[in-house]
This record gives sequence, structure tokens and C-alpha cells, in this order.
Amino acid sequence: MFNVYEFFNRINEVRPESRLDAGQPDIPVRREIIEEAVESLRRGETGYTSTGGIRELRERIAEFEGVSADEVIVAPGAKILIAAEIASAKKVAVVSPRWNAYSLIARQFWREVEVIKTTLDERWIPRVEEIKADLIIINYPNNPTGRVLSGKEIRGLLDVAEENGVKVLSDEVYAELSFTRFTPARELYENVVTVKGFSKLYSMTGFRLGYAIGERNEIRRIQRFIESTVTCVPPFVQRAGVKALELRDELIKEVRRAYLERVRMASKMLRGFDFVEPEGAFYIFLRTPQDGMAFAERLLSRGVAVFPGMAFGDYPNFIRISLSGKGLERGLRVIREELECALESRATEGWEGSSRGVSAEGSR
Amino acid sequence: MFNVYEFFNRINEVRPESRLDAGQPDIPVRREIIEEAVESLRRGETGYTSTGGIRELRERIAEFEGVSADEVIVAPGAKILIAAEIASAKKVAVVSPRWNAYSLIARQFWREVEVIKTTLDERWIPRVEEIKADLIIINYPNNPTGRVLSGKEIRGLLDVAEENGVKVLSDEVYAELSFTRFTPARELYENVVTVKGFSKLYSMTGFRLGYAIGERNEIRRIQRFIESTVTCVPPFVQRAGVKALELRDELIKEVRRAYLERVRMASKMLRGFDFVEPEGAFYIFLRTPQDGMAFAERLLSRGVAVFPGMAFGDYPNFIRISLSGKGLERGLRVIREELECALESRATEGWEGSSRGVSAEGSR
Repeated sequence: MFNVYEFFNRINEVRPESRLDAGQPDIPVRREIIEEAVESLRRGETGYTSTGGIRELRERIAEFEGVSADEVIVAPGAKILIAAEIASAKKVAVVSPRWNAYSLIARQFWREVEVIKTTLDERWIPRVEEIKADLIIINYPNNPTGRVLSGKEIRGLLDVAEENGVKVLSDEVYAELSFTRFTPARELYENVVTVKGFSKLYSMTGFRLGYAIGERNEIRRIQRFIESTVTCVPPFVQRAGVKALELRDELIKEVRRAYLERVRMASKMLRGFDFVEPEGAFYIFLRTPQDGMAFAERLLSRGVAVFPGMAFGDYPNFIRISLSGKGLERGLRVIREELECALESRATEGWEGSSRGVSAEGSR
Repeated sequence: MFNVYEFFNRINEVRPESRLDAGQPDIPVRREIIEEAVESLRRGETGYTSTGGIRELRERIAEFEGVSADEVIVAPGAKILIAAEIASAKKVAVVSPRWNAYSLIARQFWREVEVIKTTLDERWIPRVEEIKADLIIINYPNNPTGRVLSGKEIRGLLDVAEENGVKVLSDEVYAELSFTRFTPARELYENVVTVKGFSKLYSMTGFRLGYAIGERNEIRRIQRFIESTVTCVPPFVQRAGVKALELRDELIKEVRRAYLERVRMASKMLRGFDFVEPEGAFYIFLRTPQDGMAFAERLLSRGVAVFPGMAFGDYPNFIRISLSGKGLERGLRVIREELECALESRATEGWEGSSRGVSAEGSR
């Protein structure tokens, strides 16, 4: 299986000019959030906290999510919460293309993964008649496609989940960055655990702060997992989270607009090439005229980092362009040049595209 | 299985005057360490880092541990590193009494646990002829007994591990707080993964910072687990760790002396009762004249929090007294009073001790 982290660590060594690879926002963390962490540290808030998170943070999250505080748990990042769910499942289904981590986590816990593949030609809408798993992971607004499914578009999948008694893990880390109406999965189906984080809207990636919403007993079960693996989140990080939530409404407007502008700009610059214009998040999942990995390597040699489609499933002829990194405009220009160049050489040399890669989901 | 975290969360609600329960040191984090985190935050070091830790921190750890940087991995706490090992093992053995978390982690990953029981009467020395597991966890200086085994005392166990081809996970989080000569297990046996942290010597519990030392491929394998569950440690926490290491020699002298004084004071105050005087760490594991849980509950009602022996294995007639919390002297006085009182009522009422609890290791 393609390991995106190995490629990522290599990018870090190369230090390219344009970082259109990771979902590391270049919008800085707001000064108030930093200073809240600083004050907390200086107050000496450096001990353990309750394993589910400090009360104030849980309560504030509960408030705007419209749930009660004991239906919320705080953790060092959304990922460990996803791991908690995968570890407790027997078999996991994922809708593909998707964030590489789901499969990497499943591999760590020796869980089989069933892939429900979607295609660009069907506008990335999942069509499925049966789910052979006890947990299915969905992610809208979607990384890497930027799609936000309408209630009607997601309905089919949720109905099948209900028929098959499958729990849904809804990764909604980009929920606040939807440019269209977004309906949380838990409003459409009962058996849902929602996972969200502070990395995208607040740019707090390195703080490692996420949370899950679910039914009380489910949250208690997740809490057992969290306390058995990481104990708790640093108190000064949780304090920063409380401050971030105070800025939530303001930032939703500001940051969403910023990403929407980038999405429009990028879509315009890449017009004519093959992708769905994003309805949320800050990625473009683009079909390349040739092997996506080779294309990503060539871009890297020109100082532009992107991720190859294989990082998101069996998509050998795609790349994911993140619009959240530095050197965006320059990067997009280089990408357009390379796309045009590849198309041209394909036209003149009769290039037929690379042989399709074989996915090896869940295998070790 | 007794869940120490449930009891711990309850203690947090009761807010007793004397906190002799958790291993949360009351020695404050040094100002320089706090300020390093502050400066890092203000420099905007709030993004992802490489998944194994920043180079500088790995290199400094490698330096004083006498290994190379690629034999070190940094993680949010020692616990997730222990989890990484347990998750990859088929069956786990633990030497008991031991920190409750080993079994709780094993339970999360559905791993069976074989308990190698030691006794106060044998001065907590493990005697074993065969290890029916592929991983054994040892912990010296020991929590909860405070014992530091000599090379001769640990030799037997390591020989059996070698004969049976068993990997040793050596939890050495208290290594710097040994009052006697301490030999790291990896100097005595090849197949060892060592886990250490910043919580005890530096009091950086809430920072969540730990590291593992092992053979390169083993470290790479652990790194896969870390990046699949928590991605990385916050950069400003890692920076604080670098600063802490600069203070290491100074703090070893200062903090070790402080705990040694407490150990001497406590041992003197509790003279005549049943325990081994600690050779390291900051706990006393004491035999109670009656059921340890009932004894802990009575102490809690008098404003003194301790953990019952059952939190550390099948030790129903023990309590663990942590010497690292606030209200120590008062707490020890209350404990002595209650011990005397219990002995007295036992003498007058012919009290025979509680029925022995049944341990249910690894069961769900």
C-alpha cells in the first residue's frame, strides 16, 4: 500500500517552493488562540486533565453542535478518535477516494477494509447495494474531491447502512468549510459517530486537537480507548481550543471566504482539465494525462509538492492539489504548464496512459 | 477489571486535601521549559512535524541515551508507545504489581495478558521458569513498589525471555529517579524496546511527551503506528522537551534528592507497617490490615486520596501512596492513624481480613 507519510517526509526534506501537498493551512493561527495557550502555560496548567477533556471545552462544543456535554469527547486530533472506532470494528468500509489514513489505521489494527469506489464521471457519488462491514467511514466535505453530497445524494448510502445495521463514522473535519449547505450525517441517520477537529478552520494542525460526538455509551467506550493510549490532551491546548471556539463564527466567515476565493481562482486557472469544482474543503482532485505518481514526481522536481492519487485509493491517474499551502499561484501555474506539456506529448507521441496500479487495500 | 481511571475521575470530583493518588508530581515545571514552549508558540511553530519527532529532540535524546537518532522516536506520552508494542504482540506478559494501564491497553487491543505475580515477602523479585507470551513488560524503578532490581535480581527473568525468544518492553519512565544504581534492561539483553518520558523528572505530565529507544526497524514500525494514530507531537511541546534536556543533569540532582527526602520521611512515618522501602520512583506500596479498596475509600472520606492495590493487580490488601502530590505530610499522618485504628479494631474484634478479590486479567 502506498504510504503517504513516507512521501510526505521526503517532501519535507526537499523543501519545495510550493507546498500544495499536505492539508496544512497557511492561514496562521489567530494571535488570541496562541496567547490563550501562553497564559494557560504560565498559569501552570501543565498536569493531567480528566481523560475526556476539560468540562468547559466539552460544554462549548456541545453547545454549538446541539448535543449534551456527555455526548462529546476531546482527544489529541481527530485521527485517534477514528482509530478508536476502527479498533473496535470487525470490518471497515470506506468510500474511495479518501484520506489515506483510514487504511493505514486499519492496517495497524489488522482490520480488513472494503472499498466502495466512486468515480469522477459519476461526480464521486457512492452507489452501493450492500455494505459488508460493521463500520463505514464517510467524509464530506470530501478530502480529496471537495464534494459535499446533498441529502439526496447521501441518502442511498445511509439507507443501505441502516438496512445492514452498519455504524457510520462521519469524518466532518471540513464541515465549517463547506461552500454549500452541508447536513451532518447524524441528522439523517441515528447510528453515527461524528469526528471533527481544530486543524482546518482554526489552522491548529500542530496543536493536535479533535473531538467526537456520539451516543453517551459510545463516547464512554471511546474514552476508555483514549485514556488507554494517550491519557488526555495537554490542558493548555484545550484552553486554546476554548478560545478558538469563541472566534468560531468570525472565523467561519473569514476562513471559508478565503478558501472559496482560492477554489475559484484555482478552478479558473485549471479550467479545461478534468475535475469537479470543489463545494467544500480546499483540495482539487484532478485527472492527470499520465501516471499521477510520475506527474507528482515531476512537479516536485520543479518545486511543487502535490500528493499522487494513489494516496487516496486506486486512482493512479490523479493528483490532489491542496489549496491551503504556500506558493499556491506559482504552483498552479507550474501544474497547468505540466498538464499542457503532458497532453501535448501524449498527442504527438500517441501516449496511452500508464498501466493501472493495483490497489492492495488492507493487505500488509 | 478495576478501572483506575474511573476512581481517578471520582477523586477529581471530590477534590481531597491530600493528593497521594496519581503520579502527578507537585514539583512545578521549570520556568525555562514553560517559556521555551511560549516562544515556540509565538514563533508560530504550530504545524505538523515529521511523524517521528523533530530532529533536534531525537538527536539530544540519542546523545545522552548513547544510541543513534534513528533508534529514537518521540510520541505524545510513553503510553502510546507501550500501546504500539502491545498492539503488535500476540500475547503479553506483565510482572505484577504493575501500572494498571498495561492491562487496560491490552484490553483495548483484545490481547491476552499473562500475569507474573511477585510478592512483598519475596521483596517483589520475579521468579519465572517460562514466559508464555511474545512480549513481556517490565518496569524498574517500579511503580508501585519502588523497587529497583539489581542486575542479579533481573537476570533470571531476562534469561528466560531470551530462552523463549520473548521481546522485552522496558518501561523506564522512573530511570532518572533511582536512588541506587540502575541498569537499563537494554544493557543486559538485546531484544529490548525501552520507553521513557518527560512526566516524572521534569513534571511535564500534561505536556504528553515520551520516547522509545529500540533497533532501527523496530522504531520505524512504531513510527507507522504513531503516524496512524496521533500524527505527531505538537512542535511547541517538542521544543519544551529540548529545553528540558538542557536542564537534565541539574534536575536529576535536584529532583532525585527531593523525592529521596520524601521517601525517607514517609518510610520513617510509616515505620512498623508492611512495605519495602523504595529504591526509586516516588511510591510506597503498603499492605493494609484490611481490604485496600475499603481502606482507600475511608482515606478519601478523610480527604486523602490513594489508589487501592487492586489498581496494580491481584493485591486486595494493599494501597499505593504517591509521594509526589500535595498535602503529603498531613496525608501520611492520616494514613498512619487509620492503619493504627484498623489494626486495633482487628485485634479487638478478631477481624480476619477481607475475602481475596478475584483478578480478571485481560477479560472483558
